[in-house]
Amino acid sequence: MQGKAAVTKQFTIAWGDCDGAGIVYYPRFFFYFDICTWSIFYNVGLHEEAMKRRYNYIVYPAAEVSAKFHIPCRCRDVLTFESRITEWRAKFFRVEHTVRKEDGRVALVGSELRFMGEVGSGDPPRLRAAVIPAEVRAMFAD
Amino acid sequence: MQGKAAVTKQFTIAWGDCDGAGIVYYPRFFFYFDICTWSIFYNVGLHEEAMKRRYNYIVYPAAEVSAKFHIPCRCRDVLTFESRITEWRAKFFRVEHTVRKEDGRVALVGSELRFMGEVGSGDPPRLRAAVIPAEVRAMFAD
Amino acid sequence: MQGKAAVTKQFTIAWGDCDGAGIVYYPRFFFYFDICTWSIFYNVGLHEEAMKRRYNYIVYPAAEVSAKFHIPCRCRDVLTFESRITEWRAKFFRVEHTVRKEDGRVALVGSELRFMGEVGSGDPPRLRAAVIPAEVRAMFAD
Amino acid sequence: MQGKAAVTKQFTIAWGDCDGAGIVYYPRFFFYFDICTWSIFYNVGLHEEAMKRRYNYIVYPAAEVSAKFHIPCRCRDVLTFESRITEWRAKFFRVEHTVRKEDGRVALVGSELRFMGEVGSGDPPRLRAAVIPAEVRAMFAD
Repeated sequence: MQGKAAVTKQFTIAWGDCDGAGIVYYPRFFFYFDICTWSIFYNVGLHEEAMKRRYNYIVYPAAEVSAKFHIPCRCRDVLTFESRITEWRAKFFRVEHTVRKEDGRVALVGSELRFMGEVGSGDPPRLRAAVIPAEVRAMFAD
Repeated sequence: MQGKAAVTKQFTIAWGDCDGAGIVYYPRFFFYFDICTWSIFYNVGLHEEAMKRRYNYIVYPAAEVSAKFHIPCRCRDVLTFESRITEWRAKFFRVEHTVRKEDGRVALVGSELRFMGEVGSGDPPRLRAAVIPAEVRAMFAD
Repeated sequence: MQGKAAVTKQFTIAWGDCDGAGIVYYPRFFFYFDICTWSIFYNVGLHEEAMKRRYNYIVYPAAEVSAKFHIPCRCRDVLTFESRITEWRAKFFRVEHTVRKEDGRVALVGSELRFMGEVGSGDPPRLRAAVIPAEVRAMFAD
Repeated sequence: MQGKAAVTKQFTIAWGDCDGAGIVYYPRFFFYFDICTWSIFYNVGLHEEAMKRRYNYIVYPAAEVSAKFHIPCRCRDVLTFESRITEWRAKFFRVEHTVRKEDGRVALVGSELRFMGEVGSGDPPRLRAAVIPAEVRAMFAD
């Protein structure tokens, strides 16, 4: 995919990703979504330590996630994940994932609404969505 | 929860469920959703072998899933999952999950649209959503 | 199991614990071992925050682990894990796990050599095995 | 690594591989060992379907596994796994894994004793170690 707010990654489905029906155990797809989302931020240097150090933010908890599964995926499938930040709100951002099989067909799509967390008061402390710094958002401008 | 189409289960969040931010790594919640969904079917005897034997159906792949996270969960949290089949369609059913902390607050909610799969043609074979037998649906009537 | 250095826990094998051969994907057993090991320490109050606060120790990284699998375990198996600290060294302790099927047969055994970590120098910092405080060890004396 | 009985693979440690101490949650290493072991067999065409079709064998359950952890691994570490079949017995084979950090230091080593399973009698059926066909073993000869 083009642009700083996007990443394309390939993963080969492992035996350990699949269940007794011989298809991917669906929670595993979120593991791969998560890798892609982090990767977008890594690509501009915004890993968890940088975000903690610069902003004292905890990154990047999920507020909402979803997926739609179109074609079952199996062991040894080589899947291409195209992931892109598609929306910026004051305190949230959305990453959308499109996952294709080797023949180009879309196997599944996913969406994650995530935020940058600020530790609030309370014991254990609340985790509040923080304002996304303009400079962070600017790092993804093409 | 009341009724045959529902189950209530408790899980203690494990160290291995949590990530570097000290909160539950969100894909893990779908592992617990999955246990609850299967449990509803186990409670009426409809495990994977029974469904294969009686109907030649592969159970219970997901078509769509989603979750909304309200309060972060941490290691040693004892969470109560209330899961219920809330919708039957000709070929799909929906399970909704409400997860509460020990103080009763809702930590997250989830939804899964699942089906019973029929192996179609092709190599590898397609997995088609099958008609849900009336007698299966009847097993959940209260 | 008897004694403060031991715990007995039951887990029902989930669909998500199993692989395409219909048996437990073996890395999952270590997830359950880990829960049992932490549980022994939780039972005397030595969770990760307490250990960090009192001793500035990071708990409880593994130095060596092993397992022997005797009988395959399947979805819906109710397994009983008996876990016990069987050895204390100056800087390490061993936890041994015996896992039984419902009929009492031993399905697998496991062993973990773990330690309490001290953050050393370097970038990233080394994680050194720390001397186990006598008072910690004393908490498990019967 | 050289030879048909060996494979070298690189994996980047993901956020989801790490625990609350910021290091790899150790059961995850066995997921990567498993990928490497399967990969050795994939490289000569012996995936699970081929083994089922040709020999009616279920592949490749573990009989014994172990790991020794020398240096903690963290999120974003790029680890090189060198995996090799080091021993053939009549009914078992051993795969040894050496995992190195980017600077070449050994972070951990692992060993898996695995077999090819034959379904025996009983309900549920026993899973017996089968004799490894000479032709299978020959496929790894250099």
